[in-house]
Amino acid sequence: MKALFFLYDGYMDWEISPLAYIFSETSVEIETTALNEEIIHSGKFKVKVDKTLDQCLVHDYDILVIPGGDPEPLLEENGLIRLVQEFDDKNKWIAAICWAPTLLGRSSVLRNRIYSTSIDISEFPTCFNPQYKSEADTTICENLITAEGNAYVEFAVAVGKHLNLFKDREDELETVLFFKNQLRE
Amino acid sequence: MKALFFLYDGYMDWEISPLAYIFSETSVEIETTALNEEIIHSGKFKVKVDKTLDQCLVHDYDILVIPGGDPEPLLEENGLIRLVQEFDDKNKWIAAICWAPTLLGRSSVLRNRIYSTSIDISEFPTCFNPQYKSEADTTICENLITAEGNAYVEFAVAVGKHLNLFKDREDELETVLFFKNQLRE
Repeated sequence: MKALFFLYDGYMDWEISPLAYIFSETSVEIETTALNEEIIHSGKFKVKVDKTLDQCLVHDYDILVIPGGDPEPLLEENGLIRLVQEFDDKNKWIAAICWAPTLLGRSSVLRNRIYSTSIDISEFPTCFNPQYKSEADTTICENLITAEGNAYVEFAVAVGKHLNLFKDREDELETVLFFKNQLRE
Repeated sequence: MKALFFLYDGYMDWEISPLAYIFSETSVEIETTALNEEIIHSGKFKVKVDKTLDQCLVHDYDILVIPGGDPEPLLEENGLIRLVQEFDDKNKWIAAICWAPTLLGRSSVLRNRIYSTSIDISEFPTCFNPQYKSEADTTICENLITAEGNAYVEFAVAVGKHLNLFKDREDELETVLFFKNQLRE
């Protein structure tokens, strides 16, 4: 199994770092992409991506992951919007957290499917239909997994669960409690 | 205020990503360093550091942060051990999480000061005195802040608190609850 992380300047690394770790521990291959070769995340670390967006073939991946940040500069990036649509067209998983579901709304992907997001959806009326906004902080709808930024652990575990990465229910529950610092011997 | 993150191949990015975010949001300057210019973290992202270790002047920073991972290949890196000692000699903050306190034990820094760590300390008898191992998952002792890996949120908030980064007690508590996804309106 192979995951593609789309990164961009100012992306919230803590929203996807437990997920990348779960992937790494369960032998999911990880590749990173961005519009440029190098980006700076919200914690000011410089990340050098494996491939620029134009080098990515959707066919190679099972899931696209997009962290939160400021999506506004990305809404007119047609290459990115096409990538998101192609993942959906091929019925591959798309996992988007915090403000990233805006990119799903900007493409044809959200449609009448329920979603979670941290963004004030009234500011992006062409991206979001309020009718389909979930009450939950993490939502799975067909091939889409969306979440509020604060639910980054629940998001990681939801992705892991739906990709069958956990050995069993105990492994899944232990992962939640570990990242919540509530795991007791 | 300025923070230096020491990074290395396989470091656990999720253990320091909330802390780097708190720094970034409170205008603490952030620089990254490593033995080489580029490293790969536990989630398989490539990070390009701002400076190699030999370019860092301790004088420029207020705090050194070291994430967990496998410290064993680093224990004989004299340049790193000297850097840790120099931060301590100058009474600057040192924050080490998970397995990173092993590097503090390898240097002269731990002495008879209490610490937290995730590592099995019996495997590193020359680094750790069992007598001073804390019962808590996060420990502040003079200029040292140490924690178990699972306590990465508590670690970040402890650092933020002792560096006076929070506006007030409410801000501190809200930060804990936000990263625990327990903040309610």
